[in-house]
Amino acid sequence: MLAAALRERVCQANLELAASGLVFGTFGNVSGADHEAGVLAIKPSGVAYDALTPAHIVVVSLETGAVLDGRLRPSSDTPTHLELCRAFRCGGVTHTHAEVATSFAQARMAIPCLGTTHADYFRGDVPVTRPMTDDEIAHEYERQTGLVILEAFARSGIDPREVPAVLVANHGPFTWGATPAAAVETARVLEFVARLAAATLRLDPAAAPPSLTLIDAHYLRKHGPTAYYGQN
Amino acid sequence: MLAAALRERVCQANLELAASGLVFGTFGNVSGADHEAGVLAIKPSGVAYDALTPAHIVVVSLETGAVLDGRLRPSSDTPTHLELCRAFRCGGVTHTHAEVATSFAQARMAIPCLGTTHADYFRGDVPVTRPMTDDEIAHEYERQTGLVILEAFARSGIDPREVPAVLVANHGPFTWGATPAAAVETARVLEFVARLAAATLRLDPAAAPPSLTLIDAHYLRKHGPTAYYGQN
Amino acid sequence: MLAAALRERVCQANLELAASGLVFGTFGNVSGADHEAGVLAIKPSGVAYDALTPAHIVVVSLETGAVLDGRLRPSSDTPTHLELCRAFRCGGVTHTHAEVATSFAQARMAIPCLGTTHADYFRGDVPVTRPMTDDEIAHEYERQTGLVILEAFARSGIDPREVPAVLVANHGPFTWGATPAAAVETARVLEFVARLAAATLRLDPAAAPPSLTLIDAHYLRKHGPTAYYGQN
Amino acid sequence: MLAAALRERVCQANLELAASGLVFGTFGNVSGADHEAGVLAIKPSGVAYDALTPAHIVVVSLETGAVLDGRLRPSSDTPTHLELCRAFRCGGVTHTHAEVATSFAQARMAIPCLGTTHADYFRGDVPVTRPMTDDEIAHEYERQTGLVILEAFARSGIDPREVPAVLVANHGPFTWGATPAAAVETARVLEFVARLAAATLRLDPAAAPPSLTLIDAHYLRKHGPTAYYGQN
Repeated sequence: MLAAALRERVCQANLELAASGLVFGTFGNVSGADHEAGVLAIKPSGVAYDALTPAHIVVVSLETGAVLDGRLRPSSDTPTHLELCRAFRCGGVTHTHAEVATSFAQARMAIPCLGTTHADYFRGDVPVTRPMTDDEIAHEYERQTGLVILEAFARSGIDPREVPAVLVANHGPFTWGATPAAAVETARVLEFVARLAAATLRLDPAAAPPSLTLIDAHYLRKHGPTAYYGQN
Repeated sequence: MLAAALRERVCQANLELAASGLVFGTFGNVSGADHEAGVLAIKPSGVAYDALTPAHIVVVSLETGAVLDGRLRPSSDTPTHLELCRAFRCGGVTHTHAEVATSFAQARMAIPCLGTTHADYFRGDVPVTRPMTDDEIAHEYERQTGLVILEAFARSGIDPREVPAVLVANHGPFTWGATPAAAVETARVLEFVARLAAATLRLDPAAAPPSLTLIDAHYLRKHGPTAYYGQN
Repeated sequence: MLAAALRERVCQANLELAASGLVFGTFGNVSGADHEAGVLAIKPSGVAYDALTPAHIVVVSLETGAVLDGRLRPSSDTPTHLELCRAFRCGGVTHTHAEVATSFAQARMAIPCLGTTHADYFRGDVPVTRPMTDDEIAHEYERQTGLVILEAFARSGIDPREVPAVLVANHGPFTWGATPAAAVETARVLEFVARLAAATLRLDPAAAPPSLTLIDAHYLRKHGPTAYYGQN
Repeated sequence: MLAAALRERVCQANLELAASGLVFGTFGNVSGADHEAGVLAIKPSGVAYDALTPAHIVVVSLETGAVLDGRLRPSSDTPTHLELCRAFRCGGVTHTHAEVATSFAQARMAIPCLGTTHADYFRGDVPVTRPMTDDEIAHEYERQTGLVILEAFARSGIDPREVPAVLVANHGPFTWGATPAAAVETARVLEFVARLAAATLRLDPAAAPPSLTLIDAHYLRKHGPTAYYGQN
């Protein structure tokens, strides 16, 4: 893919993220990776969404993070995106401050899978990272944020392709996907299932999850070789 | 009714459902039945609402579920619709992921009748199904979903004409009515009374229901031979 | 005032009520009284707001409730409006199903005065009626609804001019004022202070009310001879 | 700055406040101070936002509060604004009835810093004042409101430049900044972090705050000499 096409795509995905109401002010960001070309394109730091054009998107090296193209400073969260893209081999990453998903992150709670809407998109709970140590915060904070995310998946054995989202403790959600647009769609779904879970827990703080059989039935109805939802 | 008219009507009802904010993404669906003709018309699986036209609506046999007309695959929930249409002799069915009604479903709680707004539309609590067994999930899942709904009404003795809505445990709401449009209107009402009930329970988890006399007075003010609400 | 002017005013107030988002479907209604002429003008029963014109408004006798002018049936809640207008000598009454005020009514809780926003409009808690008896529901239900409202004010000693709103248990709110428009404005304020109170109680179920001195200072800053808010 | 420019700026900030949905009716207000000229410009009392023009803005003496220019009565909250502007040397102050921030004020709870979104803007909890005494309410109420705010900062040792917001007990929030526009932006942020905090506390009433290290890292990433967020 040409750098211009990647930039266009990443710009468009950032605008969709802003239109979805999941970000506050200049916060939040979407990146897109081209693994063949070894580059990541990302929103510049602190730029208003309504002024964003493809020319503002910054292209950095997937390997080193060095700016390859663009006159602005890349998002301060760039090192987090790089860790996720490299480890998960994904094509797009988002970070938002979406209200209810962020509330789960602030409460240091995973978003529990309490129904089939959740299971249609995520094969189980959306995990939360452990709090970061003072040392991690003091040195390469944004890169360490990526590393505690990887640790959360490694520890729990959750497959990041089956649960393409995470909550960073006391911070907020990240999502990923095959493309920047797919990652944005997952960010929208995440906020919706977070709202459902929060409302369910208000009705019954001890609400029981569905059986694993039901979770798998719904997840596999939409994903993988046995899927039968949709037209393909 | 001609198949073209039924398709038009079902398409229109699906668009109204989407406009009402009760569905998420391509989720949710409305069907319409013509009992005389022995057909059910329903939304195709996984098609975006903003692209939906009457030509996309799939017509299946009310008896066998076999596709009679249409080039797309019908909604994966079609077998559930068929069970409800056959058992309740209704002309329209909806399935949504409306936020608060779905939360009650995820909490496996009936929506309690806590006031006259609820009683104006539903003569008592909106029931919730029992969780499905692994066996039911593994074999003809969507048809079994319909059967546990029928079981919930049979067990409780609730008349599906007086309470034209149900919550499927850990899944979400279904509603029905004389026409697809009536079923959509009931889906909207259901979400509103679910919001009222949830807000009431937040103020007082032990909120007392109104007397049966008050519930009946309001229900019968709007329904049946003694109704005196409205202009007819 | 000419009947045409009263009708126009009442129609306009009903449209404002609908635009305010406080009513659901065809529910809710606003009336206007002309005490000199001895008439009450009110929305017809079950008519959609978007089709409402002054010609639909029904004029009834303030004394007997008999229809004096209009071809439609008046709101089924007309007898309640008549009781309030006669007892409180007010020029306008509303009934809504506003979400949070209705939730307090369903929980049979007064809306507590927890801050100055509330005190700027209502000099203390907004009361809730006692549940109605089977006998009251069975005979002249809507008129009895008015009578339990009057009882709530008589019992508590609250001045209906200083607290121009009430919650009917398991039903919903009524508000009143010097004109139909003033009653609609009070309905909007009521929902807002209900939202504030509900949110406060979620943070602290035992939240302490402000001192009576603070409530009175705010109420009297805006009402009565010592008011100093605004430009008059 | 010319008085005309200050008026224009203050009018614009008031319109932005109204557009942000943080005020109800004619409530709420923004002022702007010119410390060199010794003046404060503020919204007139009880004037509807949609009719507001720069000509309505009232200019008073920062020292005495006397009206220097303008035909309308200044906001009744003017003495509170004067105390804050003089003590904090700020260029703009807002007062709103924003729903969730006001709920914290009514619950007499500080808004706890529970995550990085909060820490990006406020270096720690947003404090709440003590309840006012009857004597303070009875004599120069609005000026005393300013004084209990100053007391809250003096007692807690919080730097009003690092936490430019406060909740007045049983009343609502005030915010400030270098300009009227900055104060309005802070009012918007305050409501957003209040929503996040309230949602977090609903999930876990004992939610743990992030470490001071994390709070400082985020605050200092955006403020002061070591900031590296944004393009400057």
